[in-house]
Amino acid sequence: MLRTQHPLVQNITNFVSMDMSANVLLAMGAAPAMVHAPQESADFTKLVDALVVNIGTLSSDFAAGGEAAATAAHMLGRPWVLDPVGVGATPFRNEAVQRLLRHRPHVIRGNASEIMGVAKVAGLNTPDARPRGVDSAHSTDEALTTAQHLARHHFCTVAATGATDLITDGERIVRLANGHPLMTRVTAVGCALSAVVAAFCALADDAFEASVSALAVYGVAGEMAAERAQSPGSYRVAFLDQLDQITPNDIIQRLKVV
Amino acid sequence: MLRTQHPLVQNITNFVSMDMSANVLLAMGAAPAMVHAPQESADFTKLVDALVVNIGTLSSDFAAGGEAAATAAHMLGRPWVLDPVGVGATPFRNEAVQRLLRHRPHVIRGNASEIMGVAKVAGLNTPDARPRGVDSAHSTDEALTTAQHLARHHFCTVAATGATDLITDGERIVRLANGHPLMTRVTAVGCALSAVVAAFCALADDAFEASVSALAVYGVAGEMAAERAQSPGSYRVAFLDQLDQITPNDIIQRLKVV
Amino acid sequence: MLRTQHPLVQNITNFVSMDMSANVLLAMGAAPAMVHAPQESADFTKLVDALVVNIGTLSSDFAAGGEAAATAAHMLGRPWVLDPVGVGATPFRNEAVQRLLRHRPHVIRGNASEIMGVAKVAGLNTPDARPRGVDSAHSTDEALTTAQHLARHHFCTVAATGATDLITDGERIVRLANGHPLMTRVTAVGCALSAVVAAFCALADDAFEASVSALAVYGVAGEMAAERAQSPGSYRVAFLDQLDQITPNDIIQRLKVV
Repeated sequence: MLRTQHPLVQNITNFVSMDMSANVLLAMGAAPAMVHAPQESADFTKLVDALVVNIGTLSSDFAAGGEAAATAAHMLGRPWVLDPVGVGATPFRNEAVQRLLRHRPHVIRGNASEIMGVAKVAGLNTPDARPRGVDSAHSTDEALTTAQHLARHHFCTVAATGATDLITDGERIVRLANGHPLMTRVTAVGCALSAVVAAFCALADDAFEASVSALAVYGVAGEMAAERAQSPGSYRVAFLDQLDQITPNDIIQRLKVV
Repeated sequence: MLRTQHPLVQNITNFVSMDMSANVLLAMGAAPAMVHAPQESADFTKLVDALVVNIGTLSSDFAAGGEAAATAAHMLGRPWVLDPVGVGATPFRNEAVQRLLRHRPHVIRGNASEIMGVAKVAGLNTPDARPRGVDSAHSTDEALTTAQHLARHHFCTVAATGATDLITDGERIVRLANGHPLMTRVTAVGCALSAVVAAFCALADDAFEASVSALAVYGVAGEMAAERAQSPGSYRVAFLDQLDQITPNDIIQRLKVV
Repeated sequence: MLRTQHPLVQNITNFVSMDMSANVLLAMGAAPAMVHAPQESADFTKLVDALVVNIGTLSSDFAAGGEAAATAAHMLGRPWVLDPVGVGATPFRNEAVQRLLRHRPHVIRGNASEIMGVAKVAGLNTPDARPRGVDSAHSTDEALTTAQHLARHHFCTVAATGATDLITDGERIVRLANGHPLMTRVTAVGCALSAVVAAFCALADDAFEASVSALAVYGVAGEMAAERAQSPGSYRVAFLDQLDQITPNDIIQRLKVV
């Protein structure tokens, strides 16, 4: 569907992932636009089909631009995805996430430590996360209960990604076991996934189903790419190619719901 | 000539295209430098052979840094290229373009919608552009009359790129039909072209001829790369390689002036 | 050792090199984190094993964030590496380097012109550098005496890279002659090296030895990659793959100490 409808996705994302996010969206048939300045981010949100706000390389301006766009998305009913990179690592990050949560993201996509960090920031009772920089110190299964609480309290879908991906809207739970360790050896593969979730949300009424679809396609493509390339440089190239070439049949044959 | 003279090009460009712009310039033999802070951008312009100002991921600081560098380029007689990414989408973008136009760009390079957007901002009588994010909703032929007006009123060359590329200085018109759809499936290929136009302008007195040469080399390389790679990940790699390997003979044999 | 210990490296680096720096660190087994805002950079330094501050696309905020992190690194005893990109080109850059030097970098890594530029800024008596944008106009041998002075006066290791790499702590001197000209045809290869030096410093007590190891691995990998790819697009891919695949034996067999 991305390939026929080309949803326009506004990316307020970190500097490290801009190139990869844009290339992933283009490879999948979506249209990326990176517009984040507080002077125009909300104006631009009116023109797009979905929004992703990623706090990777946070700054005051990015925080303000992200909040303005999230406010606009919420008022306009546009789906938006929050990627809380490194939440828990510094007070600056926690405060930014706290403000963004008020504008009701449709999906929160992060690793297990980040999901636990968001829950903490949201005031939920949750075990302490121990993030390591921007990497996770937890498995997604450890984050299951927290993810469900978070989804229920914020009326959103939570997608915790890792060796096993976990998607929940508080009631429904899906666990997917595709993907490949090489996906963690290329920068911004996770960040770009949040943009892909936003693109899928633009085409579906149900953010939970959109998230499951996005993670299914992404994980299967990541797995297939590892059959073509075994080192990070060529893997990045193979992964982008695979996102372009993947067919519905590939997903049906390979998807591992666990 | 780029390969023997290595012109130094100052890039005040968006975050998405910095990596690609730098790699494209290096692949072609030019030397990139990304220096945009308002505190130093004009100081640096004195040291370079050409300048490109691209408003992709605009912010107040980038607008100020771009304006300072454009002012310096105009006073020093250095060629500079304006890439008005997404003009028309927000008032913030329109105002930035309006201010930059005062400093007399030698070349304005954009897609058809952007060229029509610049003309509108410049107060010319032109049909309304309907950009879609940062993509064009128009063919370059629809922008022909507008491009000519714009070139005449601002004493510059206008290069509107798309399936057919259109270059005009108000009097002369050249239309080129090389390139390949895959060029739109890799981020920043268009932005990097503006940097290449700047590099060619550094080596020629005539910005119109420099623009034609730049677009000719770029389009032919894009076409040849598509013979080596059919998906966006590997196409990006093949395109950079092709820019390094292309010969004058390739251009003579393949250039389509229409 | 990087492959077993995965040191976490905080990168305060320029926008052009973020993608490449992160991918290089990941390919080598280290963990990158890009956190630079002055509101949180020092908080984050407490969590990392090493820091690199690169002034490539300098702005007031980056300068402040870099200084805060460098102060924290100095107080915490964390190793940190200064990459003085383009120092000497503008007063803004010189002042930033002057302030950063106060926080005692363990290693200064740059091309010959940059090393001479840092020495000038540090008030040492040194021949004038003539940088060309961000490229060097000098061989590393021309910078030898200056590099030694700089290392002695600032109690640090100086790594001047070029056709021949030069590493000195003021007393010891090592010269390495690996690497390949294609390394200069891909953007951010030099910047990423500074991040690699930081990663090696995280695992060794002696910054001089860590620098020699980092440059040895990098140069040999660069040379081996050139046997697999001859143009910049595919060379970048081959280089990242090679950093993943290189063995201690490759380095023993190929290292050229001159």
